Amino acid sequence: MELVFLIPVAGLAAVFYAAYLAWDVLRRDPGTPEMEDVGAMIFEGAMAFLKRQYGTIAILAVVTAVLISVIVGAVSEGVKDIEPSGSGADISIVYSPDAVVDHWEEGLLTGIAFLVGAAASALSGYIGMYISVRSNTRTASAATRSLKEAITVSLRGGAVSGFLVVALSLLGVSSIFFIYSEVLGNSDAIAPFLIVGFGFGASFVALFAQLGGGIYTKAADVGADLVGKVEAGIPEDDPRNAAVVADLVGDNVGDCAGRGADLFESMSAENIGAMILGVAIYTVTQDIEWIIFPLVLRSFGILATIVGLTSVPFFARDDSNQNPMTPLNYGYYVVSILSAIGLFITTKVMLGDEWHWFFFCGLIGIATGIAFVYITQYYTSGAWRPVRDIAEASRTGPATNIIIGTAVGLETTAATAITIAIALVASFALGSEADIPGAGGFTTGVFGTAVATMGMLMSAAYILAMDTFGPITDNAGGITEFSGAPESARHITDALDTVGNTTKALTKGFAVASAGLAAFLLFSAYLDKVKERLDIPLNEELPIDLSDVDVFAGGLIGAMLVFVFSSLAIRAVGNAAGKIIEEVRRQFREDPGILAGTSRPDYGRAVDITAKAALREMIAPGVLAVGLPIAVGLIFRYVRGGDAGWLAVSGMLMIGTITGILMATFFNNVGGAWDNAKKYIESGQMQVAGEGGKMETLGKGTEPHKAAVVGDTVGDPFKDTAGPSLHVLIKLLSTITLVMAPLFIP
Amino acid sequence: MELVFLIPVAGLAAVFYAAYLAWDVLRRDPGTPEMEDVGAMIFEGAMAFLKRQYGTIAILAVVTAVLISVIVGAVSEGVKDIEPSGSGADISIVYSPDAVVDHWEEGLLTGIAFLVGAAASALSGYIGMYISVRSNTRTASAATRSLKEAITVSLRGGAVSGFLVVALSLLGVSSIFFIYSEVLGNSDAIAPFLIVGFGFGASFVALFAQLGGGIYTKAADVGADLVGKVEAGIPEDDPRNAAVVADLVGDNVGDCAGRGADLFESMSAENIGAMILGVAIYTVTQDIEWIIFPLVLRSFGILATIVGLTSVPFFARDDSNQNPMTPLNYGYYVVSILSAIGLFITTKVMLGDEWHWFFFCGLIGIATGIAFVYITQYYTSGAWRPVRDIAEASRTGPATNIIIGTAVGLETTAATAITIAIALVASFALGSEADIPGAGGFTTGVFGTAVATMGMLMSAAYILAMDTFGPITDNAGGITEFSGAPESARHITDALDTVGNTTKALTKGFAVASAGLAAFLLFSAYLDKVKERLDIPLNEELPIDLSDVDVFAGGLIGAMLVFVFSSLAIRAVGNAAGKIIEEVRRQFREDPGILAGTSRPDYGRAVDITAKAALREMIAPGVLAVGLPIAVGLIFRYVRGGDAGWLAVSGMLMIGTITGILMATFFNNVGGAWDNAKKYIESGQMQVAGEGGKMETLGKGTEPHKAAVVGDTVGDPFKDTAGPSLHVLIKLLSTITLVMAPLFIP
Repeated sequence: MELVFLIPVAGLAAVFYAAYLAWDVLRRDPGTPEMEDVGAMIFEGAMAFLKRQYGTIAILAVVTAVLISVIVGAVSEGVKDIEPSGSGADISIVYSPDAVVDHWEEGLLTGIAFLVGAAASALSGYIGMYISVRSNTRTASAATRSLKEAITVSLRGGAVSGFLVVALSLLGVSSIFFIYSEVLGNSDAIAPFLIVGFGFGASFVALFAQLGGGIYTKAADVGADLVGKVEAGIPEDDPRNAAVVADLVGDNVGDCAGRGADLFESMSAENIGAMILGVAIYTVTQDIEWIIFPLVLRSFGILATIVGLTSVPFFARDDSNQNPMTPLNYGYYVVSILSAIGLFITTKVMLGDEWHWFFFCGLIGIATGIAFVYITQYYTSGAWRPVRDIAEASRTGPATNIIIGTAVGLETTAATAITIAIALVASFALGSEADIPGAGGFTTGVFGTAVATMGMLMSAAYILAMDTFGPITDNAGGITEFSGAPESARHITDALDTVGNTTKALTKGFAVASAGLAAFLLFSAYLDKVKERLDIPLNEELPIDLSDVDVFAGGLIGAMLVFVFSSLAIRAVGNAAGKIIEEVRRQFREDPGILAGTSRPDYGRAVDITAKAALREMIAPGVLAVGLPIAVGLIFRYVRGGDAGWLAVSGMLMIGTITGILMATFFNNVGGAWDNAKKYIESGQMQVAGEGGKMETLGKGTEPHKAAVVGDTVGDPFKDTAGPSLHVLIKLLSTITLVMAPLFIP
Repeated sequence: MELVFLIPVAGLAAVFYAAYLAWDVLRRDPGTPEMEDVGAMIFEGAMAFLKRQYGTIAILAVVTAVLISVIVGAVSEGVKDIEPSGSGADISIVYSPDAVVDHWEEGLLTGIAFLVGAAASALSGYIGMYISVRSNTRTASAATRSLKEAITVSLRGGAVSGFLVVALSLLGVSSIFFIYSEVLGNSDAIAPFLIVGFGFGASFVALFAQLGGGIYTKAADVGADLVGKVEAGIPEDDPRNAAVVADLVGDNVGDCAGRGADLFESMSAENIGAMILGVAIYTVTQDIEWIIFPLVLRSFGILATIVGLTSVPFFARDDSNQNPMTPLNYGYYVVSILSAIGLFITTKVMLGDEWHWFFFCGLIGIATGIAFVYITQYYTSGAWRPVRDIAEASRTGPATNIIIGTAVGLETTAATAITIAIALVASFALGSEADIPGAGGFTTGVFGTAVATMGMLMSAAYILAMDTFGPITDNAGGITEFSGAPESARHITDALDTVGNTTKALTKGFAVASAGLAAFLLFSAYLDKVKERLDIPLNEELPIDLSDVDVFAGGLIGAMLVFVFSSLAIRAVGNAAGKIIEEVRRQFREDPGILAGTSRPDYGRAVDITAKAALREMIAPGVLAVGLPIAVGLIFRYVRGGDAGWLAVSGMLMIGTITGILMATFFNNVGGAWDNAKKYIESGQMQVAGEGGKMETLGKGTEPHKAAVVGDTVGDPFKDTAGPSLHVLIKLLSTITLVMAPLFIP
């Protein structure tokens, strides 16, 4: 227990560091009055949307919490205690004959955990966005002075969000674990099962936050582009376009609030899942370290990230030739090296004689994180073949741009799937080498995959800081254009924006990879929950037979859920964008002074319409995601009878997760590649031999560029709505089945 | 054994009926000299491609056959006989202590079966295409006279292909079964395991035929459209476009030869799989009927189809208001009703006292076939919401056309997945009700899913006839345009072409649904093969545990295979189309007389270049599909050790199949919907309120139409290359793992 003190230390260190960064950002110059003016509009629009969105989510969450309490309370048999029986190699993990937590109490505790998780998730989204919409004008203002200052402001603004999300997850999970075990007097072995509601609450809020934010941001983006750039022929972010403020608001509500909630729930759910897996080893060794190990490891990750982020400015040169990505990459190496050291200490101190096997597992996780940084860059950056192929295909028009883009996007799943498969199999194999009497190779192997996941997520705060950096610089660029700031400032924000696109793509790759690694541990946690209900010892295997017709049918429906959910998310963007286009057209029509530049469009009304449309459109995919797993479990349980309910849900969870990982990878990467193919052409790098053999540049305004713009627009809802929402869907499948498992078991 | 005589009777009846139809088509008027001229060019181009393609495939097939013989011979332990032990409820299915078929003999027989299956598949593709390229000019000629005659000619041409493919599959499988059991003196119980090579051979040829043909047809189509319609501004099928003959050739090599090989392998592999499942019941009951039941049921299906096809002209009215689809639908009902009667007779006579359960299973299969006819029509026909939504989205440009089209395509997987899931679970549940002492509910349940699959495939010849009808009418339209036939003939071929598009879409829906139903039976057959190798009694369950890391990793790679294979297939079309565009541009540039209409382009050279490009491009996805399952099995077997090899392959097979079903559905339906959205706009049905509220038609040549053309072009490689190739990939995964299983088992 020596290292437990680190949990509050790291958690509070992160909060104080975030507070310092926030203070540092807020005390800076908020820019010219024009910047302040548009900044205020963005702030108001973003906060108004968030308020409305959280209002809707709060109602849904409270209803769900009550339902969970009542349903779990009514159908569960209560929680039985878990104890070792026998000793040495003959040890077995058995359940007490009677429940030690009454079923109504179980329901109530689960419902409360759900609400706490939901509230913490909402809070982290809110704070992150608050700072982000305060950092954008300050970054725009800094860009009028120097690149280095602009990087510092935007990265610090992003870091506030990163640290708070990670700290809230760590402190939230450890507090509720502490309360449910020590304060309420439950045994440490069953407490992890009681807090699963926290993960579900976090997923629930993340789902709607990501859907609502993702629909908002892309509907505004697509709508503003189609009606402004295509129809009216005015530039991007032009103040005459009534949808332009909505577009700037969208960057914040989608990328900051949505992604923050996404990573908050990843960390929380995976932490809780890993703690459940630790229970089996704890029961046979009686060392509580196996349960709280994930929390301690995360604490080291936070400390490593604080050092890494602080080191970034030291790698930045004042020299304008330096790629702004370079210091960020160096900072990531610092985090990775310090994480490896923290991993060494944590495993050696906490995980007994066989610690080294788990140390190797954690290293695999850290290496997987680094691998994904490179894989994503290869597929979505203009420097390599994939994006150039798409740019080249734009020469024969939008159709070939889409065809080759789709081919590239599908291809990117190869590196993702193979890397995840290797990381999983290797960490399982290493973990199962650990010889812990009574635990068995399967139990330690699964724990090994959990350590790999934890190792990868140690750098989550850094990744999230880089991610939030994206919308801040994107917004700063918009504000610069909108407020008529000097050309030189626009150059600086453009350079930052390009980096921001890369870091946003990285976060998505990281989120998918962590979801892939975590799938296995969360599935095992679900099976542990089923074992507990069926009185099967935790250290015995419970095979889920793929040749069972219910598992297969559940799997088919799980894969289908991914397709249909994506369909609803993509269509939602189309529908909401249609509303925005109508509104902007109406404003152009009713006040000709807008296009002439003599009167100011009604930005607020466009923001309002976007918000309403996004909130309406998030309901259908959200309800499908929450409802279908429950419906499948109940239908199979009652129509097919026997074990069919939880078996079908097992198939759905596992095969839905695999399909979701691949589809999310496809959507994220194809969107990023289309975006950068357009940017590649705009940058004037595409040269072809023209008449008489002399080289021509196919740049902005040419037919290939127009074709590339079509691809970019198609990619918008793919990469910023469907893809990120799928990350959340995958995790939601795990947390919902964990909480609702009693419903599916006869 | 009373009904066995039906197998040769139905097989020969189909051959003679096909011969009669072929004679009837060939004796008809081949049209004007201009028609004969272009017909001859198409014939030459198609035959030249097929010869070259089959040459390449033959080399690959012979090498593969030798490798199979050597590998299976070297690694297998030979085939042990299967016998019942004990009696009544205590009966168990055990293996003889020694192999009754020596391992080298097993290798040799498997290799020979592979070659026979490959040759039969190639033959059915060849004959079908021969008649089809002879029917096209005759249909064009008939179209100058009457709609009814044009339907008769094209449907009879298509029926030749349908009957020959089904007959060759039936006669091929039954002959090789007869030779390997009776002639070579092996027991009936092990003969089905010896003929699995036949299915693999069929899949092997189908894979390359479908890939090569699919790439050819869409590369020519996309290339001809982009360089003709878009660049040069000349109409479709205009004789000045050098690629137009290649485009017409493509319809035949893609849809006729490719789809024929696809359905040939479906029927063969599913027949063999069902026979293997019958072995378990045969062993305990000692009734050979359980093994040969699938062959007899198929025979009834052929007889039902002969009657159904003959009945179509009786439903056709001379009245031009009749939708040409109506008589085809009535004919399908005739086939379905007669199939149900045949199913009743076969199950009652052959399947013992509990026959009625299997009769119900078969009815579910027949009903599933009918359901898919309607599901496909709903999603791809202009009469319903999905296609109209896409047409509507075209008003805001190509980007929204693609976005909404993608959403619709993803949505279509819902009906497909749910229907397949219900059919599988219901037929399994009914089958497992059959009380056959010693067989167990799992064995009879899986056999129930096999009967459902067989029931659905009874109408395969009819479906295939309708499918081949598509390219014949498509070609006839092209010939009419190309040869300058009167406008009235073009109207008739246009009407037929619309029906042909629907029937082509139906076949794809049918192929996907049968693949979905068959997945379960083929997977069970693979597990039976594993059981046989591991000496596990056939009537015991062999769980494939989804929470096993090797199964999960294999599943992840299986799903990835579907994505990457699709990527290669789609990119192949893009690459090959690029070559064609270059060639047509070159011809326009070097001879200005072509565009002026004074000199004739070099069609042959364009055909030649397309063929070369398609053959080159089919290699990469083909090798990936064949190589990856083997590589995964070997890597897991030797790197991970133990059972990891065959477990990883199990996960790959099952999850690859589920993902493949959904992706194929998406590709087929989205492509069909985009195509019909374009046709919907062209037909002038899209009316919008314009200025002052009066209605305007947004038809051909308007901006929404151009946007819809982009969607249609994108959909081409999706629906005619990637989608159909995925059907074959799914089946290939099953047959390759069946044959190669010994390689993955320690």
